[in-house]
Amino acid sequence: MTKVKVGIINVTGYAGVELARLLYLHPEVELASVTGRSAAGKRLGEVLPHLASIDLTIEAELGEVELAFSAMPHKESAKQVIPLLDRGIKVVDISADFRLKDATEYRRWYGFTHPAPQLLKQAVYGLTELYRSQVAPAQLVANPGCYPTGAILALAPAVKAGLIEPDIIIDSKSGVSGAGRTVSLQTHFAEANEDATAYALDGHRHLPEIIQELKLLCPQGSLSITFVPHLIPMTRGILTTGYARLASGKVSVDQKGREKLFQLYQDFYKDEPFVKVVEFPPHTKHTWGNNLCLIHPTIDTKTGRLVVISATDNLVKGAAGQAIQNMNLMLGLPETTGLEALAIYP
Amino acid sequence: MTKVKVGIINVTGYAGVELARLLYLHPEVELASVTGRSAAGKRLGEVLPHLASIDLTIEAELGEVELAFSAMPHKESAKQVIPLLDRGIKVVDISADFRLKDATEYRRWYGFTHPAPQLLKQAVYGLTELYRSQVAPAQLVANPGCYPTGAILALAPAVKAGLIEPDIIIDSKSGVSGAGRTVSLQTHFAEANEDATAYALDGHRHLPEIIQELKLLCPQGSLSITFVPHLIPMTRGILTTGYARLASGKVSVDQKGREKLFQLYQDFYKDEPFVKVVEFPPHTKHTWGNNLCLIHPTIDTKTGRLVVISATDNLVKGAAGQAIQNMNLMLGLPETTGLEALAIYP
Amino acid sequence: MTKVKVGIINVTGYAGVELARLLYLHPEVELASVTGRSAAGKRLGEVLPHLASIDLTIEAELGEVELAFSAMPHKESAKQVIPLLDRGIKVVDISADFRLKDATEYRRWYGFTHPAPQLLKQAVYGLTELYRSQVAPAQLVANPGCYPTGAILALAPAVKAGLIEPDIIIDSKSGVSGAGRTVSLQTHFAEANEDATAYALDGHRHLPEIIQELKLLCPQGSLSITFVPHLIPMTRGILTTGYARLASGKVSVDQKGREKLFQLYQDFYKDEPFVKVVEFPPHTKHTWGNNLCLIHPTIDTKTGRLVVISATDNLVKGAAGQAIQNMNLMLGLPETTGLEALAIYP
Amino acid sequence: MTKVKVGIINVTGYAGVELARLLYLHPEVELASVTGRSAAGKRLGEVLPHLASIDLTIEAELGEVELAFSAMPHKESAKQVIPLLDRGIKVVDISADFRLKDATEYRRWYGFTHPAPQLLKQAVYGLTELYRSQVAPAQLVANPGCYPTGAILALAPAVKAGLIEPDIIIDSKSGVSGAGRTVSLQTHFAEANEDATAYALDGHRHLPEIIQELKLLCPQGSLSITFVPHLIPMTRGILTTGYARLASGKVSVDQKGREKLFQLYQDFYKDEPFVKVVEFPPHTKHTWGNNLCLIHPTIDTKTGRLVVISATDNLVKGAAGQAIQNMNLMLGLPETTGLEALAIYP
Repeated sequence: MTKVKVGIINVTGYAGVELARLLYLHPEVELASVTGRSAAGKRLGEVLPHLASIDLTIEAELGEVELAFSAMPHKESAKQVIPLLDRGIKVVDISADFRLKDATEYRRWYGFTHPAPQLLKQAVYGLTELYRSQVAPAQLVANPGCYPTGAILALAPAVKAGLIEPDIIIDSKSGVSGAGRTVSLQTHFAEANEDATAYALDGHRHLPEIIQELKLLCPQGSLSITFVPHLIPMTRGILTTGYARLASGKVSVDQKGREKLFQLYQDFYKDEPFVKVVEFPPHTKHTWGNNLCLIHPTIDTKTGRLVVISATDNLVKGAAGQAIQNMNLMLGLPETTGLEALAIYP
Repeated sequence: MTKVKVGIINVTGYAGVELARLLYLHPEVELASVTGRSAAGKRLGEVLPHLASIDLTIEAELGEVELAFSAMPHKESAKQVIPLLDRGIKVVDISADFRLKDATEYRRWYGFTHPAPQLLKQAVYGLTELYRSQVAPAQLVANPGCYPTGAILALAPAVKAGLIEPDIIIDSKSGVSGAGRTVSLQTHFAEANEDATAYALDGHRHLPEIIQELKLLCPQGSLSITFVPHLIPMTRGILTTGYARLASGKVSVDQKGREKLFQLYQDFYKDEPFVKVVEFPPHTKHTWGNNLCLIHPTIDTKTGRLVVISATDNLVKGAAGQAIQNMNLMLGLPETTGLEALAIYP
Repeated sequence: MTKVKVGIINVTGYAGVELARLLYLHPEVELASVTGRSAAGKRLGEVLPHLASIDLTIEAELGEVELAFSAMPHKESAKQVIPLLDRGIKVVDISADFRLKDATEYRRWYGFTHPAPQLLKQAVYGLTELYRSQVAPAQLVANPGCYPTGAILALAPAVKAGLIEPDIIIDSKSGVSGAGRTVSLQTHFAEANEDATAYALDGHRHLPEIIQELKLLCPQGSLSITFVPHLIPMTRGILTTGYARLASGKVSVDQKGREKLFQLYQDFYKDEPFVKVVEFPPHTKHTWGNNLCLIHPTIDTKTGRLVVISATDNLVKGAAGQAIQNMNLMLGLPETTGLEALAIYP
Repeated sequence: MTKVKVGIINVTGYAGVELARLLYLHPEVELASVTGRSAAGKRLGEVLPHLASIDLTIEAELGEVELAFSAMPHKESAKQVIPLLDRGIKVVDISADFRLKDATEYRRWYGFTHPAPQLLKQAVYGLTELYRSQVAPAQLVANPGCYPTGAILALAPAVKAGLIEPDIIIDSKSGVSGAGRTVSLQTHFAEANEDATAYALDGHRHLPEIIQELKLLCPQGSLSITFVPHLIPMTRGILTTGYARLASGKVSVDQKGREKLFQLYQDFYKDEPFVKVVEFPPHTKHTWGNNLCLIHPTIDTKTGRLVVISATDNLVKGAAGQAIQNMNLMLGLPETTGLEALAIYP
């Protein structure tokens, strides 16, 4: 059987690197072409020694492929993706360039005028668990951001069931790889090690994405969200803690209510291969290197508040793994193909 | 001039160790006696090589001192402290045994019947910034917990001014030394490294302490608090993010409101040597090894919510440093004596 | 096709856990039974959440299997392995109990009398690259220690070719998971983080193993080795730096000699799927989670000394991965089956 | 009493930052002026928040001081130092620009022609323990490199006593702050975390410095040294392990020899306030933030080899602390002034 040829635009960032790793063992697709901004002409293994087994040269332009992943930064990604779409190539865009439905948001949050607003409607938001049926036939899938993935999955069941008041706090803790491979003082080892800090208090770019998606699920139709991301000294992983008042009369504020809540989450995700509702607060380490999202919902019975925690690997379920999950659907393959590996622990 | 003799009960835990380090250079007191549970008879430097310059043998019973620090675990601490009080010795208790005013809380949160409920009234809660005048003449000071220190200092100005609705979320991220020197799987390097997790979702023992103190400041008189502690892979530091809705009509939800809020915090702490209200989200690294609490208050103008972040070193301002700050007052010394060292960075 | 049933004795240690992870995706064998010292009766996922997809209950005794891995500590392992051998089961023993050929060494280095010295001759030392043909037909394979794996592979080509004087220094730096899952002060997060130290200066138990194997390769027949292991603050990985004087007249002490040396190493390992001779000093991170050993040999031209560096993941090539590599041979499978995954980076 | 005014050239690098921290509490000198390459005009606390208590503005040119520390990179440092010397200002240069006595070495190792070779003779190599009497009257002290400090102190007693053959291996493991504050991929958190690697195998710039100093101590007059530095994932600390064959007939290769060796080291350093000869392999953590060098010498009795291990904080004894130690002597102050703080542990 011939494998489907796929390619990666900008393989040298962390999302691109992780795509290459995961695609290497994928049984149904062949990584046929990779591009990289400054590394064109070099062997992949020269730039990224752990990928030396992949027999490819980094190219300036993507070769012939049926599906392409774009791991370019935002704004640059759209420029590269649009011509591919015109050529009929399927695209999973890991950047933010097609996630938001409202083109004006790009000016507000990303500071540029979107070059192809008409594509925003066509693009499917690739949070597979919520958009599975639209992802399958899509030509363009906008892969969710790392924070939105864990945050939306953690809150979707409660929001959709009208269980909580539409006023949510999302406190996320991210490993440093989330900031990418481009060097900066903030991500310098001696600065980031043994340090924790909050950032983007004026509004992180992932906020409009979280609002857009949770609002669609929300019976009340409107939603207030405070989102504060934090940087903590680990390489991979995002732990997100969500807080919201329980809507009155939905679940009781006691152990029974907790059990009902847990059941509701389990039902919501019962057929999901990559979302596990767990009985204890999850550890990011239990998702290290794999595509799982672990979710623990509970009730603070002293205050009548939902507390829900999710753990993911920001580079897998938060980026490359989810992109492959979407690719699988777009190519008519079983959703879990190539994504079955267990987390690496310890 | 003769130095005041002080002692440490249970010098071998991390709080005890840190007390010894800080007292070593204190110009007005002399560390005259230290005890340790299993290490009695050994030289201090044998058990803790970095303290080898301190010429002391670990004893089974505390020798003659004017003031004693107890760094024993809760329940055990009270047993050792009570006889010292009877002998007229001043005590700063780093354990939780005298922090809560309501004796029944000890049964609920700590699982034991308090042996001396009458002392709870006498004990002064040693959050120096709030109780300075009571600390000075006290015989018994209950040193605050590491989480309460950063949380109460972060929220006190807003609570006292009636700026926020009395419904608060406190999301704290702690380094692993907060769990102490006793080994456990949770704090095993290979488990805690590259991991983040929440814990104590049913209610952490520091919650009643936070509620007790903020309630006293609260014009409304009652208060609802959700507190979720998280463990992150660093040795020292607590970063706390507090969230609460602004009470209507107090500050405007815009940049002006932010400035007013900032001013209110600056005024509140204007004479405090160890609390700095800062213009950017603080880094725990900027408090590494010293007694500062850095606080950044802001308004999420999209939702009308106070977001306030504090950073401390859990072993200094969250334990040993604050204990010495209290000791200084109790001995009539300038409050900052021996605590002037800058943070160690990077 | 029916899969071969295999089992793990003591699945709850780090080597056992890693075996379970790697076997889960192995296409030709089925993990059919696992035992654990204190966890018998529990579901595997209860004790080790990241293994929840493996549908097994931890047992007190191993069930029916064709091949068993023992991940018990030394001395205990032999006790469990011997009865299995009597029943005709193939065994890969990850402990040290069958690595040394001379039974008296067990008394000297491990402090016990070996219960079955006759088995020491029968056991094959499972450094696959050196003993491939003996491993295939063996019933009992003694899987090498984590330090010896990287050290022997780094030095074997030079020793065998008589390139160096038989007087070697091996300086190894290990991640903390090498100390296992049993908690201790040495491996407590707050102690091991931000720390580096040497240990076992009187002689580490892996030394006789290194000597035994390198001596067999050594034309001079005798060999002096100083081996100093160090603990550094990371979870996985061993970096080993070997030093020895070049024997006179073998390679020139210049760039030409370096190239000849490099070629000799490349030839030595040219057919090896899991050993890569690399042109730059290797990073342990480039082996994270996979079975590779990366080796960089060079000459210090200022002193005429061989410097050779190897990097492995102590839990994979240094334990579980190599054990599966041996199992593959013992079961007549291609050696790389189930071990093709790339390293996880970053 | 008026304090002596001192200044720091390039306060914004890690050595400069550490100087500022340590000088802040120095009782006899006043930090009166600081310069910084791109930060001139900013308040010190704006650029380095943990230094906010130091009331200084970063200047383009150093103001009036009696003694200046240069924390500039090599080549740039000499340019700034030479005019200061002409003005009669005392200088402790933390760069390499005056460490090597032979000007041709600068072309070979640093790639530039030394601008003032005549000053190389005048400059005193500031390894205080070896050059105390020359440091005191010096105008220009060349502060040793971080690796040479730990390496030379570890080996000096054995070399000087002729105890070892003049053929030494030095294997050093350094925390990442040693690479400075300038960002790079190598020191990017996600790259350096969970990684160990060797570097500079062709010869590190600190090698000629180590050779120069040990050769001066060496009775044989010539010396062969292989030096391999390694980068390990911690912020501060250097652990150095030195290896050399014992010269025949000097000490016996047994426990007695070990004791004699230990005694010789103790005698060598018996009056040194900052060098401690210790009975167990030292931990870098036990020097975190302070000026100690811990040394453990032993004999590998199986091979007749000296193994000696030293631990320092690369930014204190390896840079800023030692610079202040030298300053104290140059100003006629007790050597330990301002350097008495214990290590911060854990």
